[in-house]
Formats: sequence, C-alpha cells, structure tokens
Amino acid sequence: MVVKERVRPGGRSARIQASVHAAVDALLEQMDRAELTIPVIAERAGVTPSTIYRRWGNLGELLSDVAVKRLRPAAEPADTGTAKSDLLAWAEQYAEEMSSEVGRAMIRDVMASPTENNAERCCGYTYEQLQAISDRAEARGEAGLDVEAVLDLVVAPIMYRILFLAPPDVAHCRALVERALPGQGQKRGG
Amino acid sequence: MVVKERVRPGGRSARIQASVHAAVDALLEQMDRAELTIPVIAERAGVTPSTIYRRWGNLGELLSDVAVKRLRPAAEPADTGTAKSDLLAWAEQYAEEMSSEVGRAMIRDVMASPTENNAERCCGYTYEQLQAISDRAEARGEAGLDVEAVLDLVVAPIMYRILFLAPPDVAHCRALVERALPGQGQKRGG
Repeated sequence: MVVKERVRPGGRSARIQASVHAAVDALLEQMDRAELTIPVIAERAGVTPSTIYRRWGNLGELLSDVAVKRLRPAAEPADTGTAKSDLLAWAEQYAEEMSSEVGRAMIRDVMASPTENNAERCCGYTYEQLQAISDRAEARGEAGLDVEAVLDLVVAPIMYRILFLAPPDVAHCRALVERALPGQGQKRGG
Repeated sequence: MVVKERVRPGGRSARIQASVHAAVDALLEQMDRAELTIPVIAERAGVTPSTIYRRWGNLGELLSDVAVKRLRPAAEPADTGTAKSDLLAWAEQYAEEMSSEVGRAMIRDVMASPTENNAERCCGYTYEQLQAISDRAEARGEAGLDVEAVLDLVVAPIMYRILFLAPPDVAHCRALVERALPGQGQKRGG
C-alpha cells in the first residue's frame, strides 16, 4: 500500500499548504470548528480565499486534510523486545489516541471528506506502523506479522468499537492481540 | 445491549417524527443533500421550523436520525439452515449494503452526529440481527454465536475496510466467517 501525499515537500505549493494547515491548527485552538470559515482561515494564513478554494475545493475537504496530517503518527512504534509486545503497546496507544475527544473529532473530519482519499491515507499510516513492527521482528529473527490479518483482527475492532459502541479497554486490546498472535512472543530470556 | 429509540410509537410526537422523516426522504429524492435546509423540510412536513429545532437541534442531527432509521434492517436474517451459512449470508449482504453509495452516505450522516447516540443505535441493530441468528441456531440444537466475538471478527473488519480501505469481496467475507466459526456448520444431511 502506498500513502499518497497531496503535495511534494519544498516549493511554493508546500509553503502554502504548511501556512494554511498552521492557520487551521491555530484557529481551532481559539474557536469552535463550527465557526471556522475559509475567508477567516485565508486571512490568518496570508493567502487569498480563492487559493484555498482552488486547492481544497471546500472547507470540509480542508479540515479533512488537516485531520489526516494530525493522524499521522509522530514516531516509529516503540521497540519493546518482541513483535507481540510491540503490537500490544501499539494497539493500546492507538485505542487511547483514537478514542480521545480530539481523536474522534479528527476521525469524523476525515470521514466527512467526500473523496474518501483521506480515509485511505489514514489506513496507510496504520499499515506503515504495522509493517515497521513486522520488519523489526524479522530483523530480530522472529516471524513477521501478517499485516492484513492484524488490520482485521486488531485495528478494525478497535476502530469499530470507538466509532459505534465504546472504546475498548486495555484487557480487550490484549485479547485482540492474543487472538492475532496466539501464544507467540514470550520475551527472549524471559 | 438495548436499542434506545428516541420516540415511542403512537401519539402526536410520533406523527411529527414520521412526517419529518418522510419529508427528508422525499426531498433527498429531489435535491442534493447540500441544498437541504430546516425551513424547506419544515414546509414539506407541515410543521414549523422551531418544531424541528426543538426536537433535533440542528440539521446534522436530523439527517443522522433519518439515516439510522434507514440502516434499520427490514427483516430477520435469512434462514439458510445453519448458523454458519446464516452468518455468511448476513455478512455478504451487510458488506454489499454498507458499501453501496447510499450505505456510505448513511454511515457518514450517522457518524456526523455529535452525540454518537445514533452510532450506538446502528450497532444495536447489528447486534440484534446477530442475536437472532444465534437464537435460531440454539433452537435448531446448534451452538449459539458469541455475538461480541462476531462483532470483532466479522462486522468490524467489514466496516473498517469499507470506511478506510476498500469494500471486502465475497471471498474476504467468507474468510472472516470461517475465522469466527472454524469448521462449524456443515448443513445437516449435507
């Protein structure tokens, strides 16, 4: 899976994007999402409203784009010694972040995008994180992850429960990881 | 799990709800969702705008409420002879309905509701359908379903893939059901 980015780094286009994203971030600290308008964002970013309309089309698409950027993980998954413990630590953090008020609002913004391209970018970030855990496992001499199976067995239930039911607790995350990697991953020497 | 309904059947309140829902349904046949406004809906439904504001608060909440009603399954799951084949038939239909353009738009409307109550009602409908399959299995003398596990193993991956990736095909639905009910449910006499 390839994570498509809308704009290449560097150049005028990237500077405009960074400036508009920063303006949205700053304004969301000060005002309610419902009060945001494209002219207000444009003024803050130092660009014309038509620049924003040309690139993003509408406010929903812009907010969705900003939300995806925020959903991008800041770092590699923590190295805790085994694939299973890495996956467990990752799943607990994912459940916690996505079920926070900010996380839910971001997911809603991403979902509200009519193109669905942003939703795929989100899933792409998740895929990359799981692939990193898998690559590290193989480098240790462990079996790698079946990333597609982990999406179905761990990621999907966490997201479904956050969106439609209630956030899963740590015990539930643990049970999901145990189901995905049964019996695997005692720490070496443990 | 209890599916909470906003209004009891019968009475003036239920008639207003039915009339407003019917107005939204009819208007959505004629115009784009983006053009809908509460005054337009009120006129069509023969109520005052303030009646709608009082009950639903805003347009997003009303559209979400209508979407949940549409997501309510029309019938019991088909009886195909075994719990496993019932679950497979149900999962295929669920994936097909939810990944249609109408289905995705409905999910987005439900998700856009700030209260999240509607999302829980949706999941409640799903839970009821799975429970019906389980009850029927027990009546046949088969093992019932672990409905919570089926939510995690079958429903969640279907919904996650529709929302964030790509709709699962029939083979994928089959693999999810096989994982949830391994080896179970050859048709009797088959």
